Amino acid sequence: MISRRSVLTTTTLAGTALIAAPAILRGVSSPAMAKAPIVGTQGPSFYRYKLGEFEIIALHEGEFTRPLDASFVRNAPLEAVQKTLADAFLPTDKLTISFTAVLVNTGSKLVLIDTGFNDNGGPTNGRTVAAMKAAGIEPSMVDTVILSHFHGDHLQGLRNKAGEIVYPNAEIMVPEAEWAFWMDDARMAAAPDAMKGAFQGVRRVLAPSAKDVKQFKWGQEIVTGITTVDASGHTPGHTAFVIASGNAKMMYVADTTNTPVLFATNPEWKVMFDMDADKAVATRKRILDMAAADKIRLAFYHASFPATGFIAKEGAGYRFVPAQWS
Amino acid sequence: MISRRSVLTTTTLAGTALIAAPAILRGVSSPAMAKAPIVGTQGPSFYRYKLGEFEIIALHEGEFTRPLDASFVRNAPLEAVQKTLADAFLPTDKLTISFTAVLVNTGSKLVLIDTGFNDNGGPTNGRTVAAMKAAGIEPSMVDTVILSHFHGDHLQGLRNKAGEIVYPNAEIMVPEAEWAFWMDDARMAAAPDAMKGAFQGVRRVLAPSAKDVKQFKWGQEIVTGITTVDASGHTPGHTAFVIASGNAKMMYVADTTNTPVLFATNPEWKVMFDMDADKAVATRKRILDMAAADKIRLAFYHASFPATGFIAKEGAGYRFVPAQWS
Repeated sequence: MISRRSVLTTTTLAGTALIAAPAILRGVSSPAMAKAPIVGTQGPSFYRYKLGEFEIIALHEGEFTRPLDASFVRNAPLEAVQKTLADAFLPTDKLTISFTAVLVNTGSKLVLIDTGFNDNGGPTNGRTVAAMKAAGIEPSMVDTVILSHFHGDHLQGLRNKAGEIVYPNAEIMVPEAEWAFWMDDARMAAAPDAMKGAFQGVRRVLAPSAKDVKQFKWGQEIVTGITTVDASGHTPGHTAFVIASGNAKMMYVADTTNTPVLFATNPEWKVMFDMDADKAVATRKRILDMAAADKIRLAFYHASFPATGFIAKEGAGYRFVPAQWS
Repeated sequence: MISRRSVLTTTTLAGTALIAAPAILRGVSSPAMAKAPIVGTQGPSFYRYKLGEFEIIALHEGEFTRPLDASFVRNAPLEAVQKTLADAFLPTDKLTISFTAVLVNTGSKLVLIDTGFNDNGGPTNGRTVAAMKAAGIEPSMVDTVILSHFHGDHLQGLRNKAGEIVYPNAEIMVPEAEWAFWMDDARMAAAPDAMKGAFQGVRRVLAPSAKDVKQFKWGQEIVTGITTVDASGHTPGHTAFVIASGNAKMMYVADTTNTPVLFATNPEWKVMFDMDADKAVATRKRILDMAAADKIRLAFYHASFPATGFIAKEGAGYRFVPAQWS
């Protein structure tokens, strides 16, 4: 009988002996190792799809994993949340929230909707620019950046940590109601301490560009083919966008749901991030009902990449059906 | 009122005039055109995921779209097939079948399971090598190519149209029962004309390498961590593979279903490609039952990219639940 240690030593010695053999006889590396390393991370991920004459490019910003506790869904027992996750073959002790921005190439303009974190987030996100570059587009080519709302995962990536605008040639378009809320000094002063950071974060990004930012109302075609839709509730100015080219139409619904696995399945559940949760529920049901009835393609910020698909009514809620990759 | 032709002319002239203006004043291109072209095709798509110490890389070979008619599912009315497709928000007049090969990096070997078409297919497939290269792996680095069975979309890509082996340093491993069937001269001679091409295709690829091809039986660990499983029915030697590293385990089920949208949902449906359709149904139910009971991750050759996920029992059939992109 030989000890584990002696086996390891033998293996190591054998490996060394093989590496010392002429590499040219055996290919580029030792037969004890694969000729490509295990990378352990995803590559920059983008996904192109056609919408009439437009091309939509889903850009994988990344994700954030948080421990799952009872605070995440305000009005459902933790066990019910865990059951929904288990039914979707997901872990029940933590929740990975995905981020996917949307780039619209209208043929005359490159329009980015939502920006991710850039270098203001963590190690598992901030990949929007890398995904864009992998798709052949430089940030300097972007003509317009539209923000759906002013939560950090949508807005912080407009300006990097060093303070520079990431899309130097882009006009910036934001919801008027969102601007009114977050840029109100009195409201910031009155906000609970836990929320002051969110106000400050918005100002870090937008205050230096304040005079150039274009504010939009709902129901406006702000770029040819892109029309704003009131989706408030998640935040006061939270906006969805109908994107249309010819007869083809889709809707980017931003945070109308957080992950659809939980909140399409259970549209009445209130995620901790919904600022007016009752209104958010009403908005969610209105938009998902419309999507189910019209069979319109949706894109979500927090669905699994490429985060685009359809909504089917199912039971008391909805099922998100990812579009076929093509 | 102006004619459509005059509008087109005006547009063209205006475009020309704008292009003629000094580009330096306006950035890299005319304001009438987006600064990046509409590409119209997907980029090379790969998807890495962890399995214990192994890294699995799903490689998007592409797809093939066929008109949908009553011959595709032998034992269901066309209307029922169309209803299943419509419920999945897919077209009902045609069917796009996806192809995704699986590369396993065990740390000591790079193992490709199934090869796609390489340049022997059509314009919408043959992308496995491009996807592999995008993931940083050259065909010459592949140590082992395993074929699940000898249908063209799995095997033709082993040898390009010019007759060269695409993976020059790889050993080739194939199911013994598949070899016995397709390499039998008497069976080829007796085959109906419509099937002779399939026999010839197998010989084109494998005959020149016949002495080097390793044949495997079911229930064998043919590469460390990769064990063969009888999945016959689709073809006589059709094989699935359990891939295991430490406590982590998944199964590549190849063509145990054609698209799971149709054949996981309706496991008794017989696709036109199943050679022994009754046996294929029994195999499908056995493997999908096991997957549902054990909640084991599967990879399918014909699911939507990245073609990996889980199986839930639902009604009289199963639902394929794609894994969350991470």
